[in-house]
Amino acid sequence: MSGRFITLEGGEGVGKSTQLRALAAALTARGAEVVATREPGGSAGAEAIRALLMEGADDRWDARSEALLFAAARADHVARTIRPALARGAWVLCDRFVDSSRAYQGGGGGITDADIMALHAFGSEGLLPDRSFLLTLSAEAAARRLARRDTAGTDRMGSKPGDYQMRLAARFAELAAAEPARWRVIDADADAETVTAAILAELDPWLR
Amino acid sequence: MSGRFITLEGGEGVGKSTQLRALAAALTARGAEVVATREPGGSAGAEAIRALLMEGADDRWDARSEALLFAAARADHVARTIRPALARGAWVLCDRFVDSSRAYQGGGGGITDADIMALHAFGSEGLLPDRSFLLTLSAEAAARRLARRDTAGTDRMGSKPGDYQMRLAARFAELAAAEPARWRVIDADADAETVTAAILAELDPWLR
Repeated sequence: MSGRFITLEGGEGVGKSTQLRALAAALTARGAEVVATREPGGSAGAEAIRALLMEGADDRWDARSEALLFAAARADHVARTIRPALARGAWVLCDRFVDSSRAYQGGGGGITDADIMALHAFGSEGLLPDRSFLLTLSAEAAARRLARRDTAGTDRMGSKPGDYQMRLAARFAELAAAEPARWRVIDADADAETVTAAILAELDPWLR
Repeated sequence: MSGRFITLEGGEGVGKSTQLRALAAALTARGAEVVATREPGGSAGAEAIRALLMEGADDRWDARSEALLFAAARADHVARTIRPALARGAWVLCDRFVDSSRAYQGGGGGITDADIMALHAFGSEGLLPDRSFLLTLSAEAAARRLARRDTAGTDRMGSKPGDYQMRLAARFAELAAAEPARWRVIDADADAETVTAAILAELDPWLR
């Protein structure tokens, strides 16, 4: 069983970090080495860049500086954490990756999807996951979960208004539809155990 | 007299910061608003990125992450400091700009000059100076000045071996030769006042 590069994507509150922990436990129980990581961050340098991205006023960075910082953090994360893990046969489970940059930044502030992918090609040799899971929620479930979140911990990336979350969900759906061989869309309205089982079922051919 | 964007380039110890101060004083004495700045840095965000670039071990960043961080810092510097200053008619004097990235990074670590310029096109709409001054030293003068420098304050960018400085000087000379309308090459072996006078003579048509 050689490792694969798996990403979890989607808007806020869809359960990515919960699912990441559950998947890591399930794969570890099957004897796999698992590297559970996240973006922005996931390596010492990328975490330092993450601090620059997450702190400060909303307008601390313009869209282009921000896109370059995300690409720099991702390049470090790929070079220092993801590629070495894959090279030794580990599974890499990552909470957000380049598709989050595409969904959050591509098309906003004059930044195109082609721009984001060109930065990714330069910084990370265009590394893409073997499988990306898009966790989706119905509008009602999304509103419910966001309302439950503790807003005290909100940073400059988090908790934009509801119509923003709707556009974001639509953008993720477009990315998944454009590359069906890589993506699986998972209904995350269900309870966490059901969602984990659905993801593991999709990974089953790689787990034998 | 409308402002211009002027950069000083060259290796370590050629006198860029001394000349920048002297030029700022001379232009201010003629009634110009002068913004004297430097790279990496020159705006709040870019200075925060500068700290990431200058601190830590030599191998803290791989070449691609480093190029992206320089481009991010430059994008912030251009958007927040340089373009607003030029828009209000100020002169901008900058100690190092994209040509330093081209000379120090382009061609090393698998990064081409085209890569550096593509990042600059994305981050800063490819802004180039109206005039770039390359300060050059004879090999003897360069060795003398570097030997005098206090190595206690050396950071991870500074004080590479002498043959590195020679290759760097050659790379700057190539950049200047490839774009003669923008560049002026200034012999910086002379005393500081003579060098300042030579630079001001080149700027004279813009100072009337």
